[in-house]
Amino acid sequence: MSEKGITSREENFADWYVDLVQKADLADYSAVRGCMVIKPHGYAMWELMQKALDGMFKETGHVNAYFPLLIPKSFLSREAEHVDGFAKECAVVTHHRLMNAPDGSGVVVDPSSKLEEELIIRPTSETIIWNTYKKWIQSHRDLPLLINQWANVMRWEMRTRLFLRTSEFLWQEGHTAHATYEEAEEEAMTMLGVYRRFAEEWMCVPVLTGLKSEGEKFAGADHTYCIEALTQDKRAIQAGTSHHLGQNFAKAFDVTFQNKEGKLDHVWATSWGVSTRLIGTLIMVHSDDKGLIAPPRLAPVQVVIVPIGKPADMDRVIDAAEALAKNIRSTKWMDEPIRVKVDKREKLSPGYKFNDWEMKGACLRIELGPRDLEAGACVLASRLGGDKEAMPLDEVAAVITARLEAFGQTLFDRALAFREASTTRVDTWEDFMAAFAGDGGGGFVLAHWDGTEETEEVISDATKATIRCIPLTPLSPEDDQPGTCVFSGKPSVKRVVFAKAY
Amino acid sequence: MSEKGITSREENFADWYVDLVQKADLADYSAVRGCMVIKPHGYAMWELMQKALDGMFKETGHVNAYFPLLIPKSFLSREAEHVDGFAKECAVVTHHRLMNAPDGSGVVVDPSSKLEEELIIRPTSETIIWNTYKKWIQSHRDLPLLINQWANVMRWEMRTRLFLRTSEFLWQEGHTAHATYEEAEEEAMTMLGVYRRFAEEWMCVPVLTGLKSEGEKFAGADHTYCIEALTQDKRAIQAGTSHHLGQNFAKAFDVTFQNKEGKLDHVWATSWGVSTRLIGTLIMVHSDDKGLIAPPRLAPVQVVIVPIGKPADMDRVIDAAEALAKNIRSTKWMDEPIRVKVDKREKLSPGYKFNDWEMKGACLRIELGPRDLEAGACVLASRLGGDKEAMPLDEVAAVITARLEAFGQTLFDRALAFREASTTRVDTWEDFMAAFAGDGGGGFVLAHWDGTEETEEVISDATKATIRCIPLTPLSPEDDQPGTCVFSGKPSVKRVVFAKAY
Repeated sequence: MSEKGITSREENFADWYVDLVQKADLADYSAVRGCMVIKPHGYAMWELMQKALDGMFKETGHVNAYFPLLIPKSFLSREAEHVDGFAKECAVVTHHRLMNAPDGSGVVVDPSSKLEEELIIRPTSETIIWNTYKKWIQSHRDLPLLINQWANVMRWEMRTRLFLRTSEFLWQEGHTAHATYEEAEEEAMTMLGVYRRFAEEWMCVPVLTGLKSEGEKFAGADHTYCIEALTQDKRAIQAGTSHHLGQNFAKAFDVTFQNKEGKLDHVWATSWGVSTRLIGTLIMVHSDDKGLIAPPRLAPVQVVIVPIGKPADMDRVIDAAEALAKNIRSTKWMDEPIRVKVDKREKLSPGYKFNDWEMKGACLRIELGPRDLEAGACVLASRLGGDKEAMPLDEVAAVITARLEAFGQTLFDRALAFREASTTRVDTWEDFMAAFAGDGGGGFVLAHWDGTEETEEVISDATKATIRCIPLTPLSPEDDQPGTCVFSGKPSVKRVVFAKAY
Repeated sequence: MSEKGITSREENFADWYVDLVQKADLADYSAVRGCMVIKPHGYAMWELMQKALDGMFKETGHVNAYFPLLIPKSFLSREAEHVDGFAKECAVVTHHRLMNAPDGSGVVVDPSSKLEEELIIRPTSETIIWNTYKKWIQSHRDLPLLINQWANVMRWEMRTRLFLRTSEFLWQEGHTAHATYEEAEEEAMTMLGVYRRFAEEWMCVPVLTGLKSEGEKFAGADHTYCIEALTQDKRAIQAGTSHHLGQNFAKAFDVTFQNKEGKLDHVWATSWGVSTRLIGTLIMVHSDDKGLIAPPRLAPVQVVIVPIGKPADMDRVIDAAEALAKNIRSTKWMDEPIRVKVDKREKLSPGYKFNDWEMKGACLRIELGPRDLEAGACVLASRLGGDKEAMPLDEVAAVITARLEAFGQTLFDRALAFREASTTRVDTWEDFMAAFAGDGGGGFVLAHWDGTEETEEVISDATKATIRCIPLTPLSPEDDQPGTCVFSGKPSVKRVVFAKAY
């Protein structure tokens, strides 16, 4: 147990994570199995993510729309791979009415309200959307169709973990339609790039970008691209996916268009998504035993001001703190007012407040007391540690932006250094087994693979490590050299990335 | 049928409405009974509504959070009035897995996945939220709790109409917790005021604010406030509600707190919501036989520029149009860039485009052709009609803001004039019956009522008119004078508002 009342990372990383999510007021379990409550502090982070992503989607020509929550059961069987690989564990709506129990014990399901066809709460919306696109697409002039949806989805997960895997989660799902394979490919790559940029610049999380193996791709996709991050316990975490769906859903839902030559063709498709899992990702990459470390662009509170002093001094200290907050707020960063909060809570000691804001991930802390006021100064401290710094009051607002920039750069740099230190190249099966021995993570292991699903399965069964991606660009030039499969000894064109994953 | 291929309002108001929603690309029916697809143009309007409302909620101290979609069935029976009046027609989840049909015909529900307790898709979230608040509230220091949620909800409606009444709809629901009755009352009134301001300033829709009768209040509320608008077919439309829930949900879910005196008390509550119904409301209040008339603050396209000319001229006309668009966009209105679009679609005539943007509700249209370019001018037209106006190109950007302001004022003024002309005071049962005779609306009828639910029911059965609200401030001073009930002849303290409602 760390000093903050949460399990330490060293003691038990999984427990540390769940303790932190709850203690930092990000999310909590609910009365419904596997579903979470996203608390205001966690939801504020999701809103900041939404705003940034939504802006990037719109910059790349997308618009938002909304499709129904419920999907007729029969839709799921239309795309064969989709239903096989994906849609079995889901919430099924069978009735549409309750009635008072005849014995007065409460309410029961009215048996006469049974639906003719069961409805499924969307686990993802390809089927309902492609059923709709059939009405919207006739000609090449209707293409491309570049639509995104912000929504809740539900997958009946047996083992859940707040943010990382819950039965209900929030996400965005892009669903685009194109006239050619090449245009769809360009779209899938564009959105992969958007996700990479968001992960790196907003979340300060370095990610690998690559192609999923056939065994790991989305059920129904032609091929799947992904971004993969590495957590502090050396596991991979899939943070976003971008799928080239080929003509699979267009064929399943009979969506054709007249091309420029006047011939009928099936439409080409992509889909791409990121979810509230991103919050779990950034916690697992950056945070420590004191609590949340939030990347500055996504921190709900970037600067907290803690007024310090005896009750008699408090009024003027708070006045000065509010004035300082106003001053800082008027300094814009990333075109937004800096998010600064004065912690005026009564009957709580400064030490309690320092701990509390360390737990909740305020990036910078300003301490302000009566003696500081007399000296026209304050103390500036960073959530990343280091010396506390005395600073003239009238200079502090001017340095905040640079401090937040540097904070983000430090986060990214140390996460990248950790990932690089946790990335190994392995050429024998013995070394491969050793790399993933025990309960630990094992990091990213670059190894040769013969390209078959059989080998992929044997390796996964033996080590719990899976192919996270086939990198689009080699991490080092040697990775693109041919070799022999670490398991089968058969030829391999290049190294792929293995890891144990969340 | 109007010239635009939609039913005219005079011919059939209900058909006009649905035709317009579909032709203006706002929403469409889906494959799932009673659920709609909100198309990009309609969703853009919802996003603008969300942004404005969310800003107003945050200005009044609220934060957002997210609670589970599914509610255990037993929760609904905890608050007796709530379940009686509300929660019967709802989507019931009974199973959590599909399986391949043994006969290979597709997928079927796996009978072994039956849930121990059925789950309900939230029709509203009081129960799941108050079950959560129990964990969050112990002391008066935890209060007030001012939380809002943006979410989808589902009520199994038998008769649906796009935006106005659908099984699934999008909304926001505020759920606040307070230490005293008075604080909860102040909150309920504050949010009623926010809704009124939003309706009037953003939607340009005048609304009555008032108290619901006991028969019309929210099931589980102590009392309900509402805003009520009047449509062009003289029906009332409830556009938003704000409920004082008393201690009803706190008692049902056993949420107590230690007050300042150290005594345990149940928490006081409010809830308040508006939904995608607002989109239906503004259509029914403002639009015409040519299509959507959007209030300028909520118009996805405020200004459309239609380039006109022969193919040989098109490049330079489009260049000039884009330059003008950029110029207009840089003129901010309401702290936002003006939303301007250049309609560059090929092979469509200017006339087609004019019609199309009238249908879709662009507020202002700029026509720009080669002769205009030579004269350094363009033509400016308003969706509200009137003469087209020639204007020097370098002056047009400067007038847009004023035109949008005036556009909104005109919309509000004419809706208010219509409402006033459609508001009558009636003192006899014969006149009351006559006011609501036939299939038409009848407008707002101010009449005396004896205050009993029995009379309310008889009046509603006889005329289809219901009490829309008991106004908070009289429409005219005489309305607050005592009188005798229009039906029973018993004493009445003041006039209330009757109308047929959507």
